[in-house]
Amino acid sequence: MTKSNPGHYFEDFHVGMALHHATPLTVSTGDISLYRALTGSRHALYSAATFAEANGYDGLPVDPLLAFHVVFGKTVPDISLNAVANLGYADGRFPAAVYPGDTLTAVSEVIGIKENSSGKTGVVYVRTRGFNQRGEEALSYIRWVMVNKRDPASPAPAPVLPDLPESVDPQSLNVTRAYSRWDDTLSGSSYRFGDYEIGEKINHVDGMTVEEAEHQVATRLYQNTAKVHFDGHGQKSSRFGKRLIYGGVVISIARALSFNGLANAAELLAINGGTHTGPLFAGDTVYAWSEVLDKAEISSTVGALRLRLVAVKDQDPGDFALRGDDGKYAPGVCLDFDYWAAIPK
Amino acid sequence: MTKSNPGHYFEDFHVGMALHHATPLTVSTGDISLYRALTGSRHALYSAATFAEANGYDGLPVDPLLAFHVVFGKTVPDISLNAVANLGYADGRFPAAVYPGDTLTAVSEVIGIKENSSGKTGVVYVRTRGFNQRGEEALSYIRWVMVNKRDPASPAPAPVLPDLPESVDPQSLNVTRAYSRWDDTLSGSSYRFGDYEIGEKINHVDGMTVEEAEHQVATRLYQNTAKVHFDGHGQKSSRFGKRLIYGGVVISIARALSFNGLANAAELLAINGGTHTGPLFAGDTVYAWSEVLDKAEISSTVGALRLRLVAVKDQDPGDFALRGDDGKYAPGVCLDFDYWAAIPK
Amino acid sequence: MTKSNPGHYFEDFHVGMALHHATPLTVSTGDISLYRALTGSRHALYSAATFAEANGYDGLPVDPLLAFHVVFGKTVPDISLNAVANLGYADGRFPAAVYPGDTLTAVSEVIGIKENSSGKTGVVYVRTRGFNQRGEEALSYIRWVMVNKRDPASPAPAPVLPDLPESVDPQSLNVTRAYSRWDDTLSGSSYRFGDYEIGEKINHVDGMTVEEAEHQVATRLYQNTAKVHFDGHGQKSSRFGKRLIYGGVVISIARALSFNGLANAAELLAINGGTHTGPLFAGDTVYAWSEVLDKAEISSTVGALRLRLVAVKDQDPGDFALRGDDGKYAPGVCLDFDYWAAIPK
Repeated sequence: MTKSNPGHYFEDFHVGMALHHATPLTVSTGDISLYRALTGSRHALYSAATFAEANGYDGLPVDPLLAFHVVFGKTVPDISLNAVANLGYADGRFPAAVYPGDTLTAVSEVIGIKENSSGKTGVVYVRTRGFNQRGEEALSYIRWVMVNKRDPASPAPAPVLPDLPESVDPQSLNVTRAYSRWDDTLSGSSYRFGDYEIGEKINHVDGMTVEEAEHQVATRLYQNTAKVHFDGHGQKSSRFGKRLIYGGVVISIARALSFNGLANAAELLAINGGTHTGPLFAGDTVYAWSEVLDKAEISSTVGALRLRLVAVKDQDPGDFALRGDDGKYAPGVCLDFDYWAAIPK
Repeated sequence: MTKSNPGHYFEDFHVGMALHHATPLTVSTGDISLYRALTGSRHALYSAATFAEANGYDGLPVDPLLAFHVVFGKTVPDISLNAVANLGYADGRFPAAVYPGDTLTAVSEVIGIKENSSGKTGVVYVRTRGFNQRGEEALSYIRWVMVNKRDPASPAPAPVLPDLPESVDPQSLNVTRAYSRWDDTLSGSSYRFGDYEIGEKINHVDGMTVEEAEHQVATRLYQNTAKVHFDGHGQKSSRFGKRLIYGGVVISIARALSFNGLANAAELLAINGGTHTGPLFAGDTVYAWSEVLDKAEISSTVGALRLRLVAVKDQDPGDFALRGDDGKYAPGVCLDFDYWAAIPK
Repeated sequence: MTKSNPGHYFEDFHVGMALHHATPLTVSTGDISLYRALTGSRHALYSAATFAEANGYDGLPVDPLLAFHVVFGKTVPDISLNAVANLGYADGRFPAAVYPGDTLTAVSEVIGIKENSSGKTGVVYVRTRGFNQRGEEALSYIRWVMVNKRDPASPAPAPVLPDLPESVDPQSLNVTRAYSRWDDTLSGSSYRFGDYEIGEKINHVDGMTVEEAEHQVATRLYQNTAKVHFDGHGQKSSRFGKRLIYGGVVISIARALSFNGLANAAELLAINGGTHTGPLFAGDTVYAWSEVLDKAEISSTVGALRLRLVAVKDQDPGDFALRGDDGKYAPGVCLDFDYWAAIPK
């Protein structure tokens, strides 16, 4: 018997199970500074209190992806300590802005379960919600992971597969900010809603090489303690022989790189889906490109772009690599992320 | 004659001498974020204002080890610039919680002195106190270091050896917080005072590989400027041929790792002793294990555990390595740290 | 046509042109903590609210060099994206202190322009001003850069060379703080205005090895996105074959090192000039030395030192390397920086 956390195995999960996660975290301007310094984030909305307040916020908000990583980090000890792979996300929403001084807690509910044919692992689907100190839901998302069974001989549960929306309906997001005082000079681009076309691809040009110290510092900032990211000694005998970079680090770097071409698509409204399509290691250089998948009218002054954000490594993002002729993700493609962003008209 | 700081040599110290250290520091939520991001700290008491306030604090406090490293850092230019080795700590206490916005200053008094038989070095004992901006003592500890003599020919002073308590009496610590609203779900463990037994050993399982950038950033955060930690060029001709990681970095990483098995032993009450038993270098992976050395009743709702925290590198902490048959510390053992932590009953 | 920022080429600039730069930034105590942790800064004036308030500030101010790097960072996408070299600075002033919570924006005016004889590049001179959220000028400096022409065949504009002051007149700086409660014990040195002589050289002794993660994190903190600092993959085919460290990182580390010998010359009043005389790469160790170039009386309690701050790498700063017999900067000299600092009498 051990007092250290053994984590949950596939057999431990059942549909309807609620997991109240440990370590509430009070986010601060220190987190905002570190997030900027680690990712290169430079959207004016998440950089300047003046810009945010001119556009409907009560002060400088925390980047939704920072809040997402913090909430995700809390779920790791309960959900993915014995996970083999993080398979996907769906229906990610950010109903309340997070501000410095807010304390985030996380609760997950198991909404689906299915043993794999190997009998050694199964897939667990959870809906995770992050709440602030007033009990308001700040964010919510579905995630599914492949988890080891404790005992391959244990019987398979009846499979339950949740209804996964292909994408979030932007009309359901209750976007109230009008962006009526949006300043293109300060935001860094004059391209607005009307300038983007469905099918358009954007090369974000810049590259970011990730060092061990950087991804480790970022991942600890989020209190994500998955050992594959930190234990260089233990990882020597792993599949890759080295530390694996947390997928959230890739999402945030790619999103920060997307500023160069999508500066006005600043506010992340919803996450439709996301797949970590290949591993990233220290020393790799991340590049990114985007594709406009869809557009939606929100109000007379605001629209939304549905964007595919692709991170590639050590290659020209202007090649727009995604899948090969076999339909599989092409070599060096690390992330295929699908989200809605608000953008002024 | 030079305007740079030559530091003090053994001959410069005498019992009763007071050293008022430079560079008061205002600690902030930025320091809290960096401490978390650099160490992996995740005790709820030092992560969430809500949790801290529910348990008797006036807001989110600064981790006592962060305050300790800051105060320690201030003493380096006056005490250990010409030190050969940091030999030990005793009687460390934290009488007042430190909050963001507090400004810490440090004062040391020389309480003991003894020349070594070689005639080249001597041991200096100091009591260091850290004060907040209201002049309240926030922390206090005894430390002894081996310091070079300026001139081996200078006469030895009469030796004065201070009375070093083997451990701090937990009844003397005036612990008033009742932990009456301690939430095991949020703290991350259901193991409380009654679940730990004297002699019990706990394997903290996880490992943390330390990069040059990480220990350098942490050590500068504390304004500790000892050159062995930073000057890679100069260290090429040193005993180890490379930069040496500040021992405080090891203490904090090991303490953060100990969350996995000791999550409720969150509040560091006192430091009984500590020895840096082997060097740590960039690229090494730190693991930790703990032993319950003693238990003490504090109040009807709070107890204290006396814990030995051992950091090992590049080896399984489940081997519980400490000393070899010869009584010497075993290879790879980096830290033998002895402290009291409060824990709810 | 691309939506990513193509930057300006030499042909795009003309004298009188105003460039309003993107991404206002709200600086915070998080930035202060990171700046300290990344540079080793330890001037009491920028470390402790108590010390700053006792000496005429309204709280803990942001280090002027941090504010400078933030403002500089904003100018990169508009001025130096297609730059070949950053040639120099002049007439840098800091009329208003910057405090946590202030939001900085930057505006540049082109004040000079001259095509190079090669016809491939030209020099652009700009006056950049940083403003706080009240529209007060927080800092201002002249900078000139060599920028690529889009088309070598385009005609050369009529050259306009601005009047560059050889140094800032310290009497023009309106220094009102009296330093009447300056505490040498807390500041870390008893050497004051009267203790320094013109021509005096000071060896700052300590060395700081810079890691890739450190300079990248610092440069992103400033939202400086020049790709040469981040894109390790792309830089493989560059002149140096690797990432180049942002010159501002060198300035700040050298300035922090200068604490050891110039602790009381804490307040940076003005930048007279500065040249990045050689590249710095990750793994290099920075050392620094200073020369007192001039002295000025400011008030009955305050003086100013005009200081040359020289950063060298991987060599003893006590050799005071600067230029060889040929008048060229000596090998390993990375920075020749000329500034005024206030110092109590």
